[in-house]
Amino acid sequence: MILVRQEIGDVLRDFRLQKGRTLRQVASKASVALGYLSEVERGQKEASSEILASVADALDTPISVIMREVGDRLAVLEGINPIPDTVPEDLVVDFDAELLVR
Amino acid sequence: MILVRQEIGDVLRDFRLQKGRTLRQVASKASVALGYLSEVERGQKEASSEILASVADALDTPISVIMREVGDRLAVLEGINPIPDTVPEDLVVDFDAELLVR
Repeated sequence: MILVRQEIGDVLRDFRLQKGRTLRQVASKASVALGYLSEVERGQKEASSEILASVADALDTPISVIMREVGDRLAVLEGINPIPDTVPEDLVVDFDAELLVR
Repeated sequence: MILVRQEIGDVLRDFRLQKGRTLRQVASKASVALGYLSEVERGQKEASSEILASVADALDTPISVIMREVGDRLAVLEGINPIPDTVPEDLVVDFDAELLVR
Protein backbone atom coordinates (compact mmCIF):
# COMPACT_ATOMS: atom_id res chain seq x y z
CA MET A 1 0.00 0.00 0.00
CA ILE A 2 1.34 3.43 -0.96
CA LEU A 3 1.38 5.65 2.13
CA VAL A 4 1.14 9.41 1.82
CA ARG A 5 3.04 9.97 5.10
CA GLN A 6 6.06 8.15 3.68
CA GLU A 7 6.25 10.59 0.76
CA ILE A 8 5.54 13.60 2.99
CA GLY A 9 8.42 12.51 5.23
CA ASP A 10 10.79 12.05 2.29
CA VAL A 11 9.87 15.42 0.80
CA LEU A 12 10.27 17.26 4.11
CA ARG A 13 13.69 15.69 4.65
CA ASP A 14 14.80 16.43 1.07
CA PHE A 15 13.74 20.09 1.31
CA ARG A 16 15.48 20.39 4.68
CA LEU A 17 18.72 18.91 3.33
CA GLN A 18 18.52 21.06 0.19
CA LYS A 19 18.45 24.08 2.46
CA GLY A 20 21.33 22.75 4.53
CA ARG A 21 19.37 22.76 7.79
CA THR A 22 19.60 20.31 10.65
CA LEU A 23 16.65 18.47 12.20
CA ARG A 24 17.34 20.47 15.36
CA GLN A 25 17.13 23.84 13.57
CA VAL A 26 13.87 23.04 11.79
CA ALA A 27 12.27 21.40 14.84
CA SER A 28 13.17 24.41 16.94
CA LYS A 29 11.89 26.95 14.40
CA ALA A 30 8.68 24.95 13.91
CA SER A 31 8.24 24.44 17.66
CA VAL A 32 7.98 20.67 17.36
CA ALA A 33 9.95 18.04 19.26
CA LEU A 34 13.07 16.89 17.45
CA GLY A 35 12.17 13.22 17.92
CA TYR A 36 8.71 13.83 16.53
CA LEU A 37 10.01 15.61 13.41
CA SER A 38 12.48 12.79 12.91
CA GLU A 39 9.65 10.24 13.03
CA VAL A 40 7.60 12.32 10.57
CA GLU A 41 10.57 12.46 8.17
CA ARG A 42 10.93 8.68 8.39
CA GLY A 43 7.24 8.22 7.61
CA GLN A 44 6.56 6.73 11.02
CA LYS A 45 4.18 9.40 12.27
CA GLU A 46 1.33 11.22 10.58
CA ALA A 47 1.89 14.97 10.86
CA SER A 48 -1.23 16.99 11.63
CA SER A 49 -2.07 19.81 9.22
CA GLU A 50 -0.96 22.33 11.85
CA ILE A 51 2.44 20.65 12.21
CA LEU A 52 2.81 20.45 8.41
CA ALA A 53 2.08 24.16 8.09
CA SER A 54 4.55 24.93 10.85
CA VAL A 55 7.35 22.79 9.37
CA ALA A 56 6.74 24.18 5.87
CA ASP A 57 7.02 27.66 7.34
CA ALA A 58 10.23 26.71 9.15
CA LEU A 59 11.60 25.49 5.81
CA ASP A 60 10.55 28.75 4.09
CA THR A 61 8.66 26.59 1.61
CA PRO A 62 4.98 27.03 0.69
CA ILE A 63 2.90 24.04 1.78
CA SER A 64 1.59 23.82 -1.80
CA VAL A 65 5.14 23.23 -3.08
CA ILE A 66 5.57 20.41 -0.59
CA MET A 67 2.21 18.79 -1.38
CA ARG A 68 2.75 19.05 -5.14
CA GLU A 69 6.09 17.33 -4.78
CA VAL A 70 4.33 14.66 -2.70
CA GLY A 71 1.72 14.26 -5.46
CA ASP A 72 4.40 14.00 -8.14
CA ARG A 73 6.32 11.33 -6.22
CA LEU A 74 3.13 9.37 -5.56
CA ALA A 75 2.41 9.51 -9.30
CA VAL A 76 5.81 7.98 -10.03
CA LEU A 77 5.12 5.25 -7.46
CA GLU A 78 1.74 4.59 -9.07
CA GLY A 79 3.32 4.51 -12.51
CA ILE A 80 1.46 7.63 -13.61
CA ASN A 81 3.97 9.72 -15.50
CA PRO A 82 2.63 13.25 -15.99
CA ILE A 83 4.84 14.19 -18.92
CA PRO A 84 6.33 11.34 -20.95
CA ASP A 85 10.08 11.93 -21.04
CA THR A 86 10.80 9.04 -23.39
CA VAL A 87 9.17 7.78 -26.57
CA PRO A 88 6.21 5.56 -25.50
CA GLU A 89 6.81 1.81 -25.81
CA ASP A 90 4.24 1.30 -28.61
CA LEU A 91 5.60 4.21 -30.64
CA VAL A 92 9.08 2.69 -30.39
CA VAL A 93 7.62 -0.49 -31.93
CA ASP A 94 6.06 1.61 -34.73
CA PHE A 95 9.39 3.25 -35.50
CA ASP A 96 11.16 -0.10 -35.55
CA ALA A 97 8.50 -1.59 -37.82
CA GLU A 98 8.83 1.36 -40.19
CA LEU A 99 12.59 0.91 -40.38
CA LEU A 100 12.11 -2.76 -41.20
CA VAL A 101 9.63 -1.98 -44.02
CA ARG A 102 12.04 0.46 -45.60
CA MET B 1 -3.34 29.16 8.63
CA ILE B 2 -3.85 27.03 5.52
CA LEU B 3 -4.74 23.48 6.57
CA VAL B 4 -3.98 20.53 4.33
CA ARG B 5 -6.84 18.46 5.80
CA GLN B 6 -9.35 21.09 4.67
CA GLU B 7 -8.20 20.74 1.05
CA ILE B 8 -8.01 16.95 1.29
CA GLY B 9 -11.60 16.92 2.55
CA ASP B 10 -12.80 19.20 -0.24
CA VAL B 11 -11.03 17.17 -2.91
CA LEU B 12 -12.37 13.86 -1.60
CA ARG B 13 -15.91 15.23 -1.54
CA ASP B 14 -15.58 16.75 -5.03
CA PHE B 15 -14.26 13.50 -6.52
CA ARG B 16 -17.05 11.56 -4.78
CA LEU B 17 -19.74 13.90 -6.12
CA GLN B 18 -18.18 13.87 -9.61
CA LYS B 19 -18.58 10.09 -9.58
CA GLY B 20 -22.15 10.37 -8.30
CA ARG B 21 -21.50 8.32 -5.17
CA THR B 22 -23.01 8.77 -1.75
CA LEU B 23 -21.04 9.06 1.49
CA ARG B 24 -22.59 5.73 2.49
CA GLN B 25 -21.36 3.95 -0.66
CA VAL B 26 -17.79 5.23 -0.37
CA ALA B 27 -17.58 4.69 3.38
CA SER B 28 -18.83 1.14 2.97
CA LYS B 29 -16.45 0.32 0.10
CA ALA B 30 -13.51 1.88 1.99
CA SER B 31 -14.50 0.14 5.26
CA VAL B 32 -14.58 3.39 7.22
CA ALA B 33 -17.39 4.69 9.40
CA LEU B 34 -19.77 7.02 7.57
CA GLY B 35 -19.53 9.66 10.31
CA TYR B 36 -15.75 9.55 10.16
CA LEU B 37 -15.63 9.98 6.37
CA SER B 38 -18.07 12.87 6.68
CA GLU B 39 -15.78 14.55 9.22
CA VAL B 40 -12.76 14.00 6.95
CA GLU B 41 -14.64 15.55 4.02
CA ARG B 42 -15.49 18.57 6.16
CA GLY B 43 -11.83 18.97 7.15
CA GLN B 44 -12.61 18.21 10.79
CA LYS B 45 -10.54 15.04 11.08
CA GLU B 46 -7.07 14.17 9.81
CA ALA B 47 -7.26 11.01 7.72
CA SER B 48 -4.42 8.56 8.28
CA SER B 49 -2.45 7.49 5.21
CA GLU B 50 -4.13 4.08 5.37
CA ILE B 51 -7.61 5.66 5.36
CA LEU B 52 -6.62 7.98 2.50
CA ALA B 53 -5.40 5.03 0.44
CA SER B 54 -8.59 3.13 1.19
CA VAL B 55 -10.90 6.05 0.30
CA ALA B 56 -8.93 6.79 -2.89
CA ASP B 57 -9.32 3.14 -3.84
CA ALA B 58 -13.06 3.27 -3.09
CA LEU B 59 -13.26 6.31 -5.41
CA ASP B 60 -11.31 4.47 -8.13
CA THR B 61 -8.91 7.40 -8.10
CA PRO B 62 -5.12 7.15 -7.74
CA ILE B 63 -3.93 8.75 -4.51
CA SER B 64 -1.46 10.78 -6.61
CA VAL B 65 -4.36 12.38 -8.50
CA ILE B 66 -5.97 13.35 -5.20
CA MET B 67 -2.76 14.75 -3.70
CA ARG B 68 -1.90 16.69 -6.85
CA GLU B 69 -5.32 18.29 -6.81
CA VAL B 70 -4.73 19.12 -3.12
CA GLY B 71 -1.38 20.68 -4.04
CA ASP B 72 -2.94 22.71 -6.85
CA ARG B 73 -5.69 24.05 -4.60
CA LEU B 74 -3.19 24.92 -1.88
CA ALA B 75 -1.18 26.81 -4.51
CA VAL B 76 -4.24 28.86 -5.41
CA LEU B 77 -4.84 29.60 -1.71
CA GLU B 78 -1.20 30.65 -1.37
CA GLY B 79 -1.45 32.81 -4.47
CA ILE B 80 1.03 30.66 -6.38
CA ASN B 81 -0.34 30.28 -9.87
CA PRO B 82 1.50 27.51 -11.71
CA ILE B 83 0.54 28.49 -15.26
CA PRO B 84 -0.55 32.07 -15.97
CA ASP B 85 -3.92 31.83 -17.68
CA THR B 86 -4.24 35.53 -18.46
CA VAL B 87 -1.91 38.13 -19.93
CA PRO B 88 0.28 39.44 -17.08
CA GLU B 89 -0.70 42.88 -15.75
CA ASP B 90 2.48 44.63 -16.97
CA LEU B 91 2.16 43.16 -20.47
CA VAL B 92 -1.41 44.46 -20.64
CA VAL B 93 0.00 47.93 -19.94
CA ASP B 94 2.54 47.47 -22.76
CA PHE B 95 -0.19 46.54 -25.21
CA ASP B 96 -2.31 49.50 -24.21
CA ALA B 97 0.66 51.89 -24.51
CA GLU B 98 1.41 50.54 -27.99
CA LEU B 99 -2.18 51.16 -29.09
CA LEU B 100 -1.98 54.75 -27.79
CA VAL B 101 1.28 55.44 -29.69
CA ARG B 102 -0.23 54.25 -32.94
